[in-house]
Order: sequence, then C-alpha cells, then structure tokens
Amino acid sequence: MDIAMIGLGRMGANMAQRLHRGGHRVVGYDPGEGARQRAAEAGLEVVDSLAAAVAALPVPRVVWLMVPAGETVDQTLGQLTPHLAEGDIVIDGGNSNYQDSIRRAKALAEDDLGYVDCGTSGGVWGLQEGYSLMVGGEAAVVEQIAPLLRTLAPAEDRGWGRVGPSGAGHFTKMVHNGIEYGMMQAYAEGFALMERKQEMELDLAQVAEVWRHGSVVRSWLLDLSTEALKRNPSLDGIAPYVEDSGEGRWTVAEAIALDVPAPVITLSLLERLRSRESNSFTDRLLSAMRNEFGGHAIKKS
Amino acid sequence: MDIAMIGLGRMGANMAQRLHRGGHRVVGYDPGEGARQRAAEAGLEVVDSLAAAVAALPVPRVVWLMVPAGETVDQTLGQLTPHLAEGDIVIDGGNSNYQDSIRRAKALAEDDLGYVDCGTSGGVWGLQEGYSLMVGGEAAVVEQIAPLLRTLAPAEDRGWGRVGPSGAGHFTKMVHNGIEYGMMQAYAEGFALMERKQEMELDLAQVAEVWRHGSVVRSWLLDLSTEALKRNPSLDGIAPYVEDSGEGRWTVAEAIALDVPAPVITLSLLERLRSRESNSFTDRLLSAMRNEFGGHAIKKS
Amino acid sequence: MDIAMIGLGRMGANMAQRLHRGGHRVVGYDPGEGARQRAAEAGLEVVDSLAAAVAALPVPRVVWLMVPAGETVDQTLGQLTPHLAEGDIVIDGGNSNYQDSIRRAKALAEDDLGYVDCGTSGGVWGLQEGYSLMVGGEAAVVEQIAPLLRTLAPAEDRGWGRVGPSGAGHFTKMVHNGIEYGMMQAYAEGFALMERKQEMELDLAQVAEVWRHGSVVRSWLLDLSTEALKRNPSLDGIAPYVEDSGEGRWTVAEAIALDVPAPVITLSLLERLRSRESNSFTDRLLSAMRNEFGGHAIKKS
Amino acid sequence: MDIAMIGLGRMGANMAQRLHRGGHRVVGYDPGEGARQRAAEAGLEVVDSLAAAVAALPVPRVVWLMVPAGETVDQTLGQLTPHLAEGDIVIDGGNSNYQDSIRRAKALAEDDLGYVDCGTSGGVWGLQEGYSLMVGGEAAVVEQIAPLLRTLAPAEDRGWGRVGPSGAGHFTKMVHNGIEYGMMQAYAEGFALMERKQEMELDLAQVAEVWRHGSVVRSWLLDLSTEALKRNPSLDGIAPYVEDSGEGRWTVAEAIALDVPAPVITLSLLERLRSRESNSFTDRLLSAMRNEFGGHAIKKS
Repeated sequence: MDIAMIGLGRMGANMAQRLHRGGHRVVGYDPGEGARQRAAEAGLEVVDSLAAAVAALPVPRVVWLMVPAGETVDQTLGQLTPHLAEGDIVIDGGNSNYQDSIRRAKALAEDDLGYVDCGTSGGVWGLQEGYSLMVGGEAAVVEQIAPLLRTLAPAEDRGWGRVGPSGAGHFTKMVHNGIEYGMMQAYAEGFALMERKQEMELDLAQVAEVWRHGSVVRSWLLDLSTEALKRNPSLDGIAPYVEDSGEGRWTVAEAIALDVPAPVITLSLLERLRSRESNSFTDRLLSAMRNEFGGHAIKKS
Repeated sequence: MDIAMIGLGRMGANMAQRLHRGGHRVVGYDPGEGARQRAAEAGLEVVDSLAAAVAALPVPRVVWLMVPAGETVDQTLGQLTPHLAEGDIVIDGGNSNYQDSIRRAKALAEDDLGYVDCGTSGGVWGLQEGYSLMVGGEAAVVEQIAPLLRTLAPAEDRGWGRVGPSGAGHFTKMVHNGIEYGMMQAYAEGFALMERKQEMELDLAQVAEVWRHGSVVRSWLLDLSTEALKRNPSLDGIAPYVEDSGEGRWTVAEAIALDVPAPVITLSLLERLRSRESNSFTDRLLSAMRNEFGGHAIKKS
Repeated sequence: MDIAMIGLGRMGANMAQRLHRGGHRVVGYDPGEGARQRAAEAGLEVVDSLAAAVAALPVPRVVWLMVPAGETVDQTLGQLTPHLAEGDIVIDGGNSNYQDSIRRAKALAEDDLGYVDCGTSGGVWGLQEGYSLMVGGEAAVVEQIAPLLRTLAPAEDRGWGRVGPSGAGHFTKMVHNGIEYGMMQAYAEGFALMERKQEMELDLAQVAEVWRHGSVVRSWLLDLSTEALKRNPSLDGIAPYVEDSGEGRWTVAEAIALDVPAPVITLSLLERLRSRESNSFTDRLLSAMRNEFGGHAIKKS
Repeated sequence: MDIAMIGLGRMGANMAQRLHRGGHRVVGYDPGEGARQRAAEAGLEVVDSLAAAVAALPVPRVVWLMVPAGETVDQTLGQLTPHLAEGDIVIDGGNSNYQDSIRRAKALAEDDLGYVDCGTSGGVWGLQEGYSLMVGGEAAVVEQIAPLLRTLAPAEDRGWGRVGPSGAGHFTKMVHNGIEYGMMQAYAEGFALMERKQEMELDLAQVAEVWRHGSVVRSWLLDLSTEALKRNPSLDGIAPYVEDSGEGRWTVAEAIALDVPAPVITLSLLERLRSRESNSFTDRLLSAMRNEFGGHAIKKS
C-alpha cells in the first residue's frame, strides 16, 4: 500500500521503516527538519509539508499520525483534513486519550473521512520484533488498512486486531499501559527487596535470568530488566526518578469513574509521583505532628 | 497509694509527676543518673537502685515500668522480681508487644506476682491533660491499682478501663497506634494537597483552625497540626523523614495474620519507610526499564 | 440579616433553623412540597417559588443555595439570577466542585452579582453544635455576609473564615472530605482488627470510650463511632456497603493532577468502591489464573 | 543419577516424571497410598516407606523433598535423617520459609549432611516446559546435584542456578511469588476495567491475544489468562475468592523488616484477604459512621 507517515520521531520513524521494509510505499513527513533528514538518510521517501505528503498519495489516501498526544493531534488534523477528500483514512497510532479519539472520529465522519485509533505497543523494539496493535474504528475502514497492520505486527496473523468501535483501540492501549505500570512496579519492588538483603549476596541479573526460563513471572519486561541488570548491576548513575506519560492517569481516572477498584495500578502511578517529590510536605507534616504530641525529635533538613 | 516508677524518661517522669501531684507517694528510679537528678529536682523521691525502690514500698508492692519496649523490659523484670514477693504487682506502661505481655504475665503468675499491661496514650501532654489508659490483666489485680489509674487518666471516671485479659492493654494500644498512623497520613496528604494548590494562596493554619470547630475532621491531632502550622507555616527546616516506633509494624503483621485487610494503616506505615529512602532501587529500576523498552531518557543521579 | 434559603433538605432546613434561632429572618424555598411543609411546621417563613423568595428580601439580597451539587446548582442559578440585581449575593453552601464555583463566580460577576462558595461541614449535628464554614470569594462580599457565618459557626469568632478567592471554599471542603475518608477508614480498619481478635473479647465501645479521653486518636469521628458501637456493638443489620458522595473522587483527581501522592486518601476511596462490588471480575480472574498455572482449585460461585 | 522423591503430590509427581524421562532413576515415596499408586501407574519406581526409599539408593544418597512447607518438612527430616549418613544430600524443593531452610541446613550440617533449598517455579506446566530453579546451598553440594537440575530446568543451561548460600533459593522464590501476586493483580484489574466498559463490547480474550504478540505486557501469565478467557469469557461459575499460599505474606513481612516499601506487592496480598471477606466489619463501621454524622441512609444487610 501507499501511506503517509506524519511524525518521524522515535516511534514514527521505526514504524515507517518497518512498513517500508515490508514492501509498502511510505511518504514521510515531520515538522522538524532534523527528523526529516534522519528519515531520508534511512532511505525513506520524505516530503516537506503535510500538503506534499497528501499530494504524493493515490486516492483513497491513508495517513498515519504518529505525533504527540493531545493538542498536536488536533492541530495536525486541522492542517491535514483540508487536503483530504471523501473516503480518505486517517490513523492515529499515538497514545491519544480514547475520548479524544471518539470525538475526532465523529468529526471526521462528518466529512466522510475514515478515522482509526490504533493503540501501538512495542517501544523501540517494534521495528525488529513487530508491534502489538489494538485497533478501534469501523470494521470496513479497518479492513482497508489491514495490509499495513499485518506488516507492522509481529506476524501477519498475530498481534493485531480490531477490538471495537472508535476509541476502543486507544482505550485498550490505555489499560495496557496501566497494567504495564503495575507489572513494572511489582518487579521493581521485588528486585529492590533482593538488593537490600545483602547477606544473601544475590546477583540480581542471575536471578532474573533464572526466572526468564520456566518461571511463573517470565515476561518480556523481565527480559528487559535482565538486560538492564546485566549491564549495570547496581543501577549506578540512574536517578530514582520515574516519569509517567499520561495513560496511567487516565486508567486510574477511568477505573474510578466506572467504580472499578484498581488499587495496584493506582498505587503504581502514585509511586511514580512519589519518586519525583524532593521535599515532601506530607512527610514534613508527619514529622512535625510526631514532635508535637510525643516530643519525638525532628530531623532537620 | 505508694508506687515505684521505674524509668524516668520523658513519659515516666511525667507520669510520676502526675501521680505525685495527685497525692500518691512515688518512689522513682532510673538507671541513668541524669534522669534521676532531673526527677529529684522536680520534687520526686528518687532512689538509686531497683532494690532500693522495692525496699521503700509497703507490701503488697506496686511497681510501674516505663522503660523501652523489648529486651529492656525483660532485663528489668529479671533484676526486679527477685526482690518481689507473692501479691506484689508489676505494671508495664510502655509500648510492649502484646504477645510479650502475655508471656510475661504467665511467667510472673508462676511466682504469684500480678502483672498488668497498660497501654498509655497521651504523649507529652499527658502530664497536664491526663493519659488514656488501656489496661489488660486480671480484674482483681487491676482493681488494686485503680487509684493510680484514676489519677493518671484525664478524669477519675474517664479515659481508663480494663479492656480484657493480659495482653489486651497492649493489643489495643498497638491498634490505637495503627489508627494514629492512618489518621496522621490522611491529614498530612490533605494539607500537602492544599499547600501545592498555590493559586489559592491558602493559609494552612487558618484552614486547620476553621476545621477545629464544628467540622467532621476535628480532632486532637488536628489541634496539634494547627499549632505546628501556626508556628512554622511552611514547615521549613523539617526534613521529610518520618520515624516509626514499632506498633505500626505489629498492627500490620497482626492484621495480615488475622486475614483482616487494613490497607490504609498498612500504606501509612509503608509511606514512612518510603520517607526514609534516599536512593530507591525500586525507582531506579523502573527508570531503567522505561529506558529499555521505550528509549525514554534516564535522569542521571 | 434577611436571607433566602433555597433547598430545605436535611442540611438546608437545619441551617435555616440555626439562622432563624440566631435572630436572622430566613425565607425558605424548596421545589418539593413536602420539604416546604416540614420547614413551615418547624416555624420557618416559607414561600412557594424562587421569585417569591427573592421578592421577599430587601436589597441587596442574599440568597443561600443548599441544593445538590452539579446540574441542580446551574439550573437553580439559571432560574434565580433573572430575579436578582447588581449587588445581590448568592452563596453556594453545598458540596460543589470548586472548578464549577470558579466558573459560576465569574459568570455572576459579569452581572455584578456576588458569589460566595462556602464549604460546610458538620452534618446533622450542625444545627446544635454549629457548622465549620470554609468560605471562598471576594473579601468585601464575604464581609457582607459575615453576620450569617457568625451565627452558623459554632461560635462568633471560631469555625469560619474566608480562606481565599472564589473556589477556595469548595476546594478546602473537598480536601476536608478526602481527609475524612482517610480517617474513617483508619478507624474502621482498627476496630475491625480488634473485632477479629476474638480471644481478647474486647468491648469495642468501651475501648473507643477510653480512647475518647486523653488519647492521641481522640476526635469527633471517634465520639460518633463510640455512639454507634454502644448502640449496636456487632453492627448487626448494617450491610458492608459504603457510598461516596463525590468529593473523595475529586480529591483523588486533584492530587494526581497536581502530582501530589495521596495514597491513603486514594485507597480510602477505592475501598468504598470495593465495598460495593458483589462479584469482582478482578478476583474471579485471579482465581482463574491460579488454577491455570498451579492447578489450584477454583471456588465455585 | 539416582534420587528419591519424597512427596508425590501434584508438583512432586510431575518432577519425578520429568527426572525419570530425563534418564534418572527415581525412587518415589509418599505417605498417601493413593499418591503412591498413581505414581506407580505412571511408571515410577515406588516404595512404601522413607527407609525403603533411602535403602534403594547408592551412596552418597540424594533425597528430594516435595512436601508441604512448615511442620511437614521438619517431621519428614526427623524421620529421614536417621537413615542418612555423612555426605548424603537432602533437597527441599517446596515453598519453605527461607529462615527455616537456613536453620535446617545448619542442623543437617552438624551431621555432615548436605542441604539444598531449591525454589521451584513452573506449576503444572513444569513437567512439559521445565521448571525454573533457584538454588541455595554450598557450591560443592549444588554441583553434585547439577545433573538433576539440568534435567528439571527448561534446558540444560537455562532456568536454574545457584543463587547464593543456604536460604537464598527459598528467599528468591519467596520474592518471585510476591512479584507474581503484583503482576496477577495488575492484569486482573486491567481486564476488570475493560470488562466494565460495556459500551466498547470488548472481547477480552481477543485483546489478550493481541497483547501476547509484540506488546510490552506480554508474559506467560498473559498467555495463561488468554487461555482462561477464551474458555470462559465471562468467568462464569468462578467465585471471587482468591487464596494465598504464604509466600506473599512472607514477602510483605520481609520487606517491612528490611524497611523496603513494597506497596504494590503488599496491596496485592491485602486484596486477596479482601476477596475472602463476606461481611466486612470495616465497611459496616464506615456505613454506621456516615449515618452518624451525616444522616446518610444505611443499607440494611
């Protein structure tokens, strides 16, 4: 197929490359000149405007967005849709909020444009191993882009699927990331406990390697943790500072909105917030209270 | 009544003083010379050995221990009991583990010595406001020391009670402290949230003061927090470092042993542990994992 | 002062009564005929329309809303404001979301109407003991209604205060309720642990009563818990089903939005959601997984 | 090698079988006649006493225990060791507490008996896929039993390792299970959230299947969950009741003892306790409190 890939950052460039290698014609565009240049050097066909990207495609056109979630998606759509015509299809492969995707699908449908929300997992390894793709949108539209999904996925018949109507792709990706937070936190707590048990002199990378084969906790995240621990067993030089990219917050909000208690996913998010506190007011007040009622010494900052 | 107070630290000295003021004769002893001297200067009758303390009392003798929980209690009992005789009574007013108290009561009963475990709450304010006393032990023995309890409590008929058999006093005190952890954490989180909401320019001490009168969250801990926030609104100079003194851990262990889910009390303890982590391995591994799968930048330490 | 009280439910009727007893003239209105009738029987001056309530007041008019948070407030304002004129004041004393209050204050300010958001705590006991009032709005407007606040509060000079600009009253009330959730959960977990420790044969109401005097955990919530446990020691006939009324959810959302980790308040909310799950899918899937990998028996539903 | 397998329950029988198929001579014993009979029918060499099992082996003898953790291990060792002689080796492959294993290793060392603690993961799938084996004990002793470990593991050189001194095997297995709890809970919460989002009409097994290929959350537990959801998409007939087998409790206790905050692993355990509460006193007291202060209706049980 012919496709325009809008957004040639880490994820977009890799996906464009995987599609290209899979025999599709990919016209790439990114507002950043550096990103365009890197993509061109990597052998992709690159243009220097959204209009040019659209113009380079046969109708019906298929445009894949791989841009930062939020306003950037709306802005890109605002610039893109004037160049599109009835029957064209836009795919949002980023981490958009599923409610935005539902809204956007409705808006584009008014102009008879197809809109697909595609939750994409796989990170930097996707180029090589393929991406897991959770797709939301009208079945007929998803069917049209199936050749792309088959190429992006780890195998033609595995790792992708239309999971529901518009929004369902990004909804399931959101939940996926919530689960990811919980799993990561579970592993990290367990390894921290082993690290603290100094009299055992455990080699964490070795334990992880043992677990990778045959254990109940084997997983891809464990594979990656094993690599990280092999390269840097004491994790020196890494700050105890954990970012979050939004989907965890949405998962927590959605769970509460639906009255589903999700304590572990929720705590995993809160632990990330906690990792970024440098002078917790909560803890200072606790210390002050203890001093107030019990005369317990306050540690000075 | 006549009573020996063994242990003249912050709590013991105050309790001895309150008993003294209440008309009881208190013979004080502490292994530390400084503590003895301070007690003598405060007008208490002080002796310089356990034996002398016991010798100064009429039979049946009543000895109140206010020493650090754990081994110190066992050591003190080991040195004390040879000087005691049938019918004498020992009271442990400290924060002992209730299981130790059950064991000690059994051991002393074999020598016909009475043993009372008395959970004591009130902190440094107890001298002035009276202590809340949760008492475990045989009813007849508790009855014998009731005059002391009436004096130590905020009022003759309030704030003290035999709550059950040996161990029940320290068991209820343990739970009391678990609840205390949870309440403190709830307040601290709430105030931290208000502190962070900078555009509201809230005066936390003022909000606390408003809450003290008529609100659902009014409490003594809130009174104390109000004082702390009035004196030091931004809690400057206080490190975000929160100690725990053991009862919270026991509460968590007991709850799990009895299959009672106590998530809030448990989390309150874990948050204190967290406050003392300076370079969390958990968080460093989380950061390493994110880099591993997503190429997300690691913050350098 | 003269005031209209709109909404004569449990809270509104009591507040109207307290104002009335305090020497204010209160014109009451409620859309429900039953509520109007009960208020009239209780000696209040009751009218049968919003327009009549406004018409009964001297200018500048002061109208207190005590209606359900959310759409009802907007609808009531929509019906009310056409009858108001420059300089009149509307107070929202309910549990509105603070963001709504900021929006409403702005909208009314365009018509030169004053708007005050008043967080009100005290529950059914407020009539007798006075309410804790957290007030947000322009200082000059709050000053105008100060006579009402002095009467509603537990004392003229205590339990009320302008805590900040528009929204600050409902913001602090929201946080107040979040703290309330955490405190309640801490107590409930502690009492549940004592209840489970059957060999101690603890009398929970007695323990609570002892704690009420001199202990670190004394509070008004403990006073109420003591009453509840005295009347019904085993809490028979009460379903383990805990509602929430919205402010806890907002507190959790706000804390996450501001990157403030508030695990105990958050868990307290999740525990309430959990109390209402009758056939948890989470737990069923956990049981299914255990069977899948370990052959562990599944309990049949 | 020649080996005695003591305990022919689900795990022991499968491990004996895998060793047998791998070319080792396995002498099986179980105190239960039924278990012995099933093992014999499956082609194993079975004896009817511990003594006979020992007698059937050449020296130095190697005895693998696969019996319930706790007292059963001590009892079995008490009956077994009189039949053993210097240089013989006992392996505990069950889920013993690592502190017990350290104690037992010391005790057996006094009689010059080798003791190896082997954490074993893999569940009912181990027979076919191999087990993940975390081994603690003296290096020389572990070396002697390496041929058995190579056969039990998924491959000769993968999925097993001596991770440290005595106790290290069961310590790492304990942590493994703590992580397992957290991962399971994370998945279960995520699927429950998707299940509740009814307007998306998600096919959970399909989503799980998509995630299995290329996603960040792919794992063996996800593979198993996918199977469970395919067979029984709505998990009908499964009670929301989740057992725990002890290692999670130990992990939580160890983490607290070492001051390592492990909130997600801890909450995962508490959620299991919660799943087994049928009439939570905590929740009933919360409901009673709400009624007490706010007049909120109590749901009758």
